[in-house]
Amino acid sequence: MKARIEVFYKAGVLDPEAKAVGRALGALGFDAVTEIRQGKVIELSLAVESEEEARHQAEAMCEKLLANPVMERYRIDLIPD
Amino acid sequence: MKARIEVFYKAGVLDPEAKAVGRALGALGFDAVTEIRQGKVIELSLAVESEEEARHQAEAMCEKLLANPVMERYRIDLIPD
Repeated sequence: MKARIEVFYKAGVLDPEAKAVGRALGALGFDAVTEIRQGKVIELSLAVESEEEARHQAEAMCEKLLANPVMERYRIDLIPD
Repeated sequence: MKARIEVFYKAGVLDPEAKAVGRALGALGFDAVTEIRQGKVIELSLAVESEEEARHQAEAMCEKLLANPVMERYRIDLIPD
């Protein structure tokens, strides 16, 4: 079973890295970019018996390590083998 | 039009960040994790006239800035408004 976790800043939180990428794209002449958001995606292979167990573990991983609950939100998609 | 770009290391390229996350998850007792991959996801809003133009620009952005062609591969998904 695979868990695919996406972590993005919450709306309203300043994203300096995305701003820097936006400026760099503008400097390269890509002026069609009106908005940019950047996040991380983590793909985990899990040795678990059920989707329920996979979701439970993935949520606990997000809460404890993979996402900062104050500034970030996360989304979990499960991909059966 | 939105372009959603995912950038991952190519197979075989060492991913120290993913390794560190894997170790940290293990230390927190998450021992069901058998494999971990980490990448970035960039969502761009583009003021363009066609999907073709959006794909062309997104590919050029990847080749010039967003992905390291030696070590990384990227995937582009277009999301019409």
